[in-house]
Amino acid sequence: MNPQIGVIMGSSSDWETMKHTCDILDELNISYEKQVVSAHRTPDLMFSYAEEAREKGLHVIIAGAGGAAHLPGMVAAKTTLPVIGVPVQSKALKGLDSLLSIVQMPGGVPVATVAIGKAGAVNAGLLAAQILGTTDAAVAEALEKRRKRTHDEVLKSTGDLQ
Amino acid sequence: MNPQIGVIMGSSSDWETMKHTCDILDELNISYEKQVVSAHRTPDLMFSYAEEAREKGLHVIIAGAGGAAHLPGMVAAKTTLPVIGVPVQSKALKGLDSLLSIVQMPGGVPVATVAIGKAGAVNAGLLAAQILGTTDAAVAEALEKRRKRTHDEVLKSTGDLQ
Amino acid sequence: MNPQIGVIMGSSSDWETMKHTCDILDELNISYEKQVVSAHRTPDLMFSYAEEAREKGLHVIIAGAGGAAHLPGMVAAKTTLPVIGVPVQSKALKGLDSLLSIVQMPGGVPVATVAIGKAGAVNAGLLAAQILGTTDAAVAEALEKRRKRTHDEVLKSTGDLQ
Amino acid sequence: MNPQIGVIMGSSSDWETMKHTCDILDELNISYEKQVVSAHRTPDLMFSYAEEAREKGLHVIIAGAGGAAHLPGMVAAKTTLPVIGVPVQSKALKGLDSLLSIVQMPGGVPVATVAIGKAGAVNAGLLAAQILGTTDAAVAEALEKRRKRTHDEVLKSTGDLQ
Amino acid sequence: MNPQIGVIMGSSSDWETMKHTCDILDELNISYEKQVVSAHRTPDLMFSYAEEAREKGLHVIIAGAGGAAHLPGMVAAKTTLPVIGVPVQSKALKGLDSLLSIVQMPGGVPVATVAIGKAGAVNAGLLAAQILGTTDAAVAEALEKRRKRTHDEVLKSTGDLQ
Amino acid sequence: MNPQIGVIMGSSSDWETMKHTCDILDELNISYEKQVVSAHRTPDLMFSYAEEAREKGLHVIIAGAGGAAHLPGMVAAKTTLPVIGVPVQSKALKGLDSLLSIVQMPGGVPVATVAIGKAGAVNAGLLAAQILGTTDAAVAEALEKRRKRTHDEVLKSTGDLQ
Amino acid sequence: MNPQIGVIMGSSSDWETMKHTCDILDELNISYEKQVVSAHRTPDLMFSYAEEAREKGLHVIIAGAGGAAHLPGMVAAKTTLPVIGVPVQSKALKGLDSLLSIVQMPGGVPVATVAIGKAGAVNAGLLAAQILGTTDAAVAEALEKRRKRTHDEVLKSTGDLQ
Amino acid sequence: MNPQIGVIMGSSSDWETMKHTCDILDELNISYEKQVVSAHRTPDLMFSYAEEAREKGLHVIIAGAGGAAHLPGMVAAKTTLPVIGVPVQSKALKGLDSLLSIVQMPGGVPVATVAIGKAGAVNAGLLAAQILGTTDAAVAEALEKRRKRTHDEVLKSTGDLQ
Repeated sequence: MNPQIGVIMGSSSDWETMKHTCDILDELNISYEKQVVSAHRTPDLMFSYAEEAREKGLHVIIAGAGGAAHLPGMVAAKTTLPVIGVPVQSKALKGLDSLLSIVQMPGGVPVATVAIGKAGAVNAGLLAAQILGTTDAAVAEALEKRRKRTHDEVLKSTGDLQ
Repeated sequence: MNPQIGVIMGSSSDWETMKHTCDILDELNISYEKQVVSAHRTPDLMFSYAEEAREKGLHVIIAGAGGAAHLPGMVAAKTTLPVIGVPVQSKALKGLDSLLSIVQMPGGVPVATVAIGKAGAVNAGLLAAQILGTTDAAVAEALEKRRKRTHDEVLKSTGDLQ
Repeated sequence: MNPQIGVIMGSSSDWETMKHTCDILDELNISYEKQVVSAHRTPDLMFSYAEEAREKGLHVIIAGAGGAAHLPGMVAAKTTLPVIGVPVQSKALKGLDSLLSIVQMPGGVPVATVAIGKAGAVNAGLLAAQILGTTDAAVAEALEKRRKRTHDEVLKSTGDLQ
Repeated sequence: MNPQIGVIMGSSSDWETMKHTCDILDELNISYEKQVVSAHRTPDLMFSYAEEAREKGLHVIIAGAGGAAHLPGMVAAKTTLPVIGVPVQSKALKGLDSLLSIVQMPGGVPVATVAIGKAGAVNAGLLAAQILGTTDAAVAEALEKRRKRTHDEVLKSTGDLQ
Repeated sequence: MNPQIGVIMGSSSDWETMKHTCDILDELNISYEKQVVSAHRTPDLMFSYAEEAREKGLHVIIAGAGGAAHLPGMVAAKTTLPVIGVPVQSKALKGLDSLLSIVQMPGGVPVATVAIGKAGAVNAGLLAAQILGTTDAAVAEALEKRRKRTHDEVLKSTGDLQ
Repeated sequence: MNPQIGVIMGSSSDWETMKHTCDILDELNISYEKQVVSAHRTPDLMFSYAEEAREKGLHVIIAGAGGAAHLPGMVAAKTTLPVIGVPVQSKALKGLDSLLSIVQMPGGVPVATVAIGKAGAVNAGLLAAQILGTTDAAVAEALEKRRKRTHDEVLKSTGDLQ
Repeated sequence: MNPQIGVIMGSSSDWETMKHTCDILDELNISYEKQVVSAHRTPDLMFSYAEEAREKGLHVIIAGAGGAAHLPGMVAAKTTLPVIGVPVQSKALKGLDSLLSIVQMPGGVPVATVAIGKAGAVNAGLLAAQILGTTDAAVAEALEKRRKRTHDEVLKSTGDLQ
Repeated sequence: MNPQIGVIMGSSSDWETMKHTCDILDELNISYEKQVVSAHRTPDLMFSYAEEAREKGLHVIIAGAGGAAHLPGMVAAKTTLPVIGVPVQSKALKGLDSLLSIVQMPGGVPVATVAIGKAGAVNAGLLAAQILGTTDAAVAEALEKRRKRTHDEVLKSTGDLQ
């Protein structure tokens, strides 16, 4: 089966963040591919990746990048598939630059932006699953089960307080 | 036909922003409903809205709010449908508070966040369409046509430079 | 005796901060209960907790949360008891997101916000005591004694300057 | 009857903001006094005001100030009554300076901080009422009725959407 | 003669800012071309523009954009000509988003970033001239004359005080 | 001889920063006293310290504080001696809160604000010396010598570049 | 008599702010000179101004500038007289850039920084007077009288509240 | 041969950042000189360095500085050579102060600003090379080769994931 989700990142150093996206997709049994695609170092690859995404069967692209993070927005400019952007925490400005570079897209080309860093990477995987789940009942059910489990974990965690 | 998209906002004063979402959905012939649902003034309505959204046929919820903008995240906590959050520009902090309140969700409950203000409202409508377009070829085609049109408008606009 | 103060937090990882609230309440002999209540993972529990707070005898609710910190504001939306919000320091944005998500509430639903992190957690306990102290002379006196003690500690601390 | 709430502000120019606090107190039939008390221009008055507040029967002090807003914190240093701080929107930094000057109090001296500007001023009045309402059933009831009314207004306001 | 400088901008609405660049180039008798090239709406045009820039004789590209401003960085990714980025002032965040999106480029692909808004647009023109002036004595001399003139204007302007 | 400079700080934990002020004063042979004076924990001491400063012979007061840093501004409100404020680096917001709380004083009561942290503490000592040096030739000469020495150190330091 | 205070500013457009400094000096009968001195357009003038300041009898230099505001710090690098820096409110970043460019000086070269805009300009005049007042009893007395007057104005202004 | 690039920095502690600039210039076989030149501690040296730069054969000056970073802008005020500014990461504000002090130059005196810290230092070297490459085919070719190499490295790095 062709993968449904494409997970790309601007640098192999972003993997420490983006592996949390892949963990979620693994957990939910959603097929995906992963690749380093750099907006600035491999711009043509980025464009061809985005152009071919729909025809090769991808439903959603998840793109993680930091600093002047152009990858999610430029991929979004080359496809009408939903693109999820993960702001990777940068060294000096702690991801505020990544966040603004990803989320402040002009009208016409949306990027579905999630939180800075690990929480965002987790949520990128879940959001992609939610998109699939709008028409795939099995995925929707898996998400509901996960919600139930995290709900129960909270109830138990009160015992952790001292 | 039941509406596919639910557009909600925390206050009727957010309509000035959120009407741009509805304009896009109208333009793309996507059915939607719109309603004021306040996280802080009508919390129970917010929860029942989110709980019933999937069964009544909604595919995506778009929620706009400003300041300590809790509406998108709390709706997202009560459904596993994709929720798109639009940070409405606030008076003092110009929407930075709205943006951070919406995008910085903890791992487990994603909100697909778009830009502050009008550009974000436009893109919320387009992102919802893109999500429908992952399985609805007509919507995908309409989006491609819109892209083509905005592309051509840019080409013409060079003439506007003096 | 029923507890007078409810101390809740969005995650057990917030305990490292919120234990300072409990230390203050212990020091002042104020009865309290503590619990993990997550806005996003246990939204219904959050609502029932807030709804039942007054009738079970709570006078004040103290809620700590980080990032897109919706817990204090949503609890405040479901009760007219005073709610104190503690912005827990977040990883990327150092609690600025937590602070703005808690303090920038719309007119109608106040959250009494204190400082980011440990100082705020300490002050949440003291503020709750001050609220009780408006009608409970013993608590008011205990607060005055504490003030006197910290006053005297400052006088002595000049000797610490090398 | 002695007033229960003291409303003070650093300058008469803050009245444009702080009148919204007084409007709420009027609406809820809560007795209050109002006065200009400047931390920097009338420091001794500020101290005597704070020192005498409890004995003259005040239950809560609400202090509004902008810029390097020291009034709420310094009043809080001179009384153990609850002090609510309202960050007035400043010209250059839009109230971010006011907010941080008020909310980032060190452990030991809390200020219950509300939102920047008008929304914060409204909520300061409501929070003061909530504090009274912990032991005054009539005030608590008035607050519940106000909540009900704003709830109903939201339901009606959906009709305002074009 | 072929133009030496290419002035591009993401939208015709950026012209209000970027005309100041062109005014400087006119003043210094430097040949240039100007065009709307949108990173997000005309990505392929942007790439071909950058790819062909050197061979068609451009020495420097000046690119103005606002919000999630990807144009300067993406052009820089497709050419090794110097690229100057002008952060156009955005509505909500006043150009802070534009600035960070342009300046925070990863190692490997520089963008020479100037100030937000009009001052930056003026300086983009001057910086381009300075680059030409490293090998073109006439341009260098014109720049020195301009410096002298602005120097003399300052001396005269003291008379404007009062 | 009475000390000419009063060095105060809000907490003994500020000594790590403020010792750099004292090191400068020692180096320049300027007499000073040092003391912990807390705006929030010893407000009356703060006021009496400021009130008595001029008559006991102080020429300048240097006050260091962090977070909602009210010490410099409140001392300035109680004396017309020059007051220098040192923003101590805070934990969450890295001294931005300290800086804004100190520098954004309203018209009428100035605080001479220096940089956040160690550099500011060093400069507070130098600025106090500069103030003395306006009428004390020996101090002025000592400052000129120090400038000369740091100038020469820079010249030598080029050799440190690998 | 030679002027005691030098008031300089980077551009004649800064006069709208810096006239408030001159108003204070006029009010206090302190002699001053005023001049446009641009760090970037008249750097040599700036250096000679600073170098000659002490010998021509100036006691304090007040320098106002906006944006990348280098004037106060560079003047401070060329004299050991006290230099007061006034951050002029800038268009895009509202003076935050001006403030940080002035206040964050490295250890060795202090600038006495005041608030952004008009309040800072007023306080620059007062701070200069306070410096003179450390050895000039008449100025010190004039400052005390001014304090008394503003104190009394506050007392009267309570009547302005509605 | 005379060096083509001058690399200067405000302090020897900036070398940790600026060595990355020199590494790039070494890699590309571009001749350069390096020196500590402090705006605040050696202002006259800074001016003479800038004044003599063009006549001694420099084509570009690269200046790194942190905090109130005046070096790049003041050098730019004294030469019409292109000046590249590298914002060195500062301790408290993480380089945001450095960035704004460098980039927000007034119209008339441009500084080509690059990213905060190491990435910016790398890019400063590359940007200087790009400027040389506008007329030096060998340098242009070396840059193209470097681009090709980093492109190929990205392709290989996908294998690093997992």
